[in-house]
Amino acid sequence: MRIVDLIEKKRDGKALTTEEIQFIIEGYTNGSIPDYQMSALAMAIYFQGMTTEEVSTLTMAMVHSGETIDLSSIEGVKVDKHSTGGVGDTTTLILAPLVAALDVPVAKMSGRGLGHTGGTIDKLESVAGFHVELDKEEFIENVNKNKIAVIGQSGNLTPADKKLYALRDVTATVSSIPLIASSIMSKKIAAGADAIVLDVKTGAGAFMKDVEDARLLAETMVNIGNSVGRKAMAVISDMSQPLGYAIGNALEVKEAIETLKGQGPEDLERLCLTLGSQMVYLAGKADSLEDAENKLRAVIKNGQALEKFKGFLESQGGDPTIVEDPSKLPQARYHIDFPAEETGVVAEIIADSMGVAAMHLGAGRATKESEIDLAVGIVLHKKVGDKVEKGESLLTIHSNSEDIAEVQSLIKRSILIKDKAEKPTLIYDRVM
Amino acid sequence: MRIVDLIEKKRDGKALTTEEIQFIIEGYTNGSIPDYQMSALAMAIYFQGMTTEEVSTLTMAMVHSGETIDLSSIEGVKVDKHSTGGVGDTTTLILAPLVAALDVPVAKMSGRGLGHTGGTIDKLESVAGFHVELDKEEFIENVNKNKIAVIGQSGNLTPADKKLYALRDVTATVSSIPLIASSIMSKKIAAGADAIVLDVKTGAGAFMKDVEDARLLAETMVNIGNSVGRKAMAVISDMSQPLGYAIGNALEVKEAIETLKGQGPEDLERLCLTLGSQMVYLAGKADSLEDAENKLRAVIKNGQALEKFKGFLESQGGDPTIVEDPSKLPQARYHIDFPAEETGVVAEIIADSMGVAAMHLGAGRATKESEIDLAVGIVLHKKVGDKVEKGESLLTIHSNSEDIAEVQSLIKRSILIKDKAEKPTLIYDRVM
Repeated sequence: MRIVDLIEKKRDGKALTTEEIQFIIEGYTNGSIPDYQMSALAMAIYFQGMTTEEVSTLTMAMVHSGETIDLSSIEGVKVDKHSTGGVGDTTTLILAPLVAALDVPVAKMSGRGLGHTGGTIDKLESVAGFHVELDKEEFIENVNKNKIAVIGQSGNLTPADKKLYALRDVTATVSSIPLIASSIMSKKIAAGADAIVLDVKTGAGAFMKDVEDARLLAETMVNIGNSVGRKAMAVISDMSQPLGYAIGNALEVKEAIETLKGQGPEDLERLCLTLGSQMVYLAGKADSLEDAENKLRAVIKNGQALEKFKGFLESQGGDPTIVEDPSKLPQARYHIDFPAEETGVVAEIIADSMGVAAMHLGAGRATKESEIDLAVGIVLHKKVGDKVEKGESLLTIHSNSEDIAEVQSLIKRSILIKDKAEKPTLIYDRVM
Repeated sequence: MRIVDLIEKKRDGKALTTEEIQFIIEGYTNGSIPDYQMSALAMAIYFQGMTTEEVSTLTMAMVHSGETIDLSSIEGVKVDKHSTGGVGDTTTLILAPLVAALDVPVAKMSGRGLGHTGGTIDKLESVAGFHVELDKEEFIENVNKNKIAVIGQSGNLTPADKKLYALRDVTATVSSIPLIASSIMSKKIAAGADAIVLDVKTGAGAFMKDVEDARLLAETMVNIGNSVGRKAMAVISDMSQPLGYAIGNALEVKEAIETLKGQGPEDLERLCLTLGSQMVYLAGKADSLEDAENKLRAVIKNGQALEKFKGFLESQGGDPTIVEDPSKLPQARYHIDFPAEETGVVAEIIADSMGVAAMHLGAGRATKESEIDLAVGIVLHKKVGDKVEKGESLLTIHSNSEDIAEVQSLIKRSILIKDKAEKPTLIYDRVM
């Protein structure tokens, strides 16, 4: 088998066989297939796509390119959730204790990563004392006992995906649906998930700018799950504006607590209930999605979800009293309001730009070496469709520096006020 | 400027600017743009194509990536001819003395290369004593005096093209018309041609399998020529069967001599007159293509073309008496006829396979290190459309080995005899 023939085959729109895909991924992982052939193949895949069977084979080949996590000693169906990325997306912080309160085991492996705000671990580290330095035994014991634990990513999971992703990033082949789908699914499967719930974002602040592409990505990932023996469901949700009100690490933890108390932003709660229902249902803890949602509402109402969050923080060294007193979370020195320049209705809050503004404040990492400021960020007071009076505060900037002219200028360009505007759809579709 | 943005731009079907293309070619030549980005770009070009302007810019960027040959001290319009490659293509050996006989300066730089038979220099080395070790002054003096000289390729011409071609070869991006066209034209322009005549082959034995692709390639190259101030014309000619009768080095020299005497194969003579007319016309030595063809016929008839060939051989150390006595050329030990297995009409002689058969006999190089046997090859007696009786010789194998079972088996699979078959079109079109 010669890789140049396989590139040609894909270039000409033909499907690669299982054997061929395994040859490619093994060769690429061990270095016998060089980057310059892999990037040409990736571009050919960008143009010609892949069949359902090819994408599943590619996913499993990437899973088998490295170590896999064995979670079989954890009782129950291990459900993982993945979001394709957005701004102010606090869902993981809320969903983990929420579904754990219904005995769904949450064995979360998380990273720090780059982006507008930190990763789940960074956010949790806003809580004094919280740490993720558990060994594997403690991790599994915690999940079996409390149904919830979080550790940092370790081990050599999906090295083929890591290598291919880095290559795609510099060769304009990131935005290929089969490549995105297999990348996401391979990581989740290698990390031991039995069932996977996917939150595919769409809109200006998301990778998938339009709903149809988002639907195709969601369907592709659900198909992969089904064809490799994992349960999978997906939600297609809006990311034209930030989700919830808070963008920033400690600010999002506070918002997560409010949501677990049933006092969170409407859109964030709605999305958490939708994704949570799928998680609970796939874990076999409810008879239907409706039943699952009712159960989730019940554990919010009776305080069990919040108790689960407190117990989780405590079991990993964190101070559980922040739940009652969020002012114990890191606080920024300056709280600067951003007033509306005219009266009208908020028509646009560009999610991307708000994320970049938060990153400029120090909430996220531009490079691996950047230090995150856990306290800073943005708290919206208005969302798209809300009325606003001239001079009323649209949002508050939480900053540790007084010099925020650049951030203010970016925010100014990112918010549009018009005579009228409708609230955007939050959930476009569910795929199962 | 970031190369990843330019790959994305091309991937999305947009045209690259002059500045962007120069950035790419300079960066690729000096190594700041790695192979893995260039191959992704090449694949994007494969799918999205290039505008006339982009292809011209790319061509000139490749010309300027290395040295260029200055032929300005040669009087007259320097016309070069390029063929996209075929089997038994003896046109260069014939055209060079033919047009030189009409005072068109032929300053030929030629290579050895890989392929079914040797390059022009290998073929000429069948003539005892012939050599191409001229220094640049001798070369130019020879052309000014005799209108014809051949030297080996030297200097660092179009390094960007060399590097890109090697990359395309292993990434399934060879067959992209803008990339083929710019590769060919950049080499000819760097080698100093004022005018370029292109012989674009089509059919089973050619790179362009169908006439429309060949026409597109021809038009693209002629457009490049026109837009960078070089005259250019093209012929689209058949390569479904070998051209002429001879395939092999000394065998083709003999056939070239016969053609210069007006006794060559009909198709070879026809093609040489067509290409030669364009060369003479572009050199300003005739008022029309028709006038040019009449002049070419005249120098064949009056022996001046043959005399020019003899003078050329002599001036580069070759034995001119081979023209009168071609038996002085290297002769193979065995001449083995290949009889027809049935009576009928020759319907197919697969050019590619005949070339491979000749290479197996030793006529060509499979790798750079292979030694060529100048004597061996194949001489056809029948071409497509010719009647043949069972047992009549279809061709003669000239071999220095008795062990030719494999070659015979390959030939057997490459010739088809049917009840009836038509002579193929030789010249599909001219592009100017």
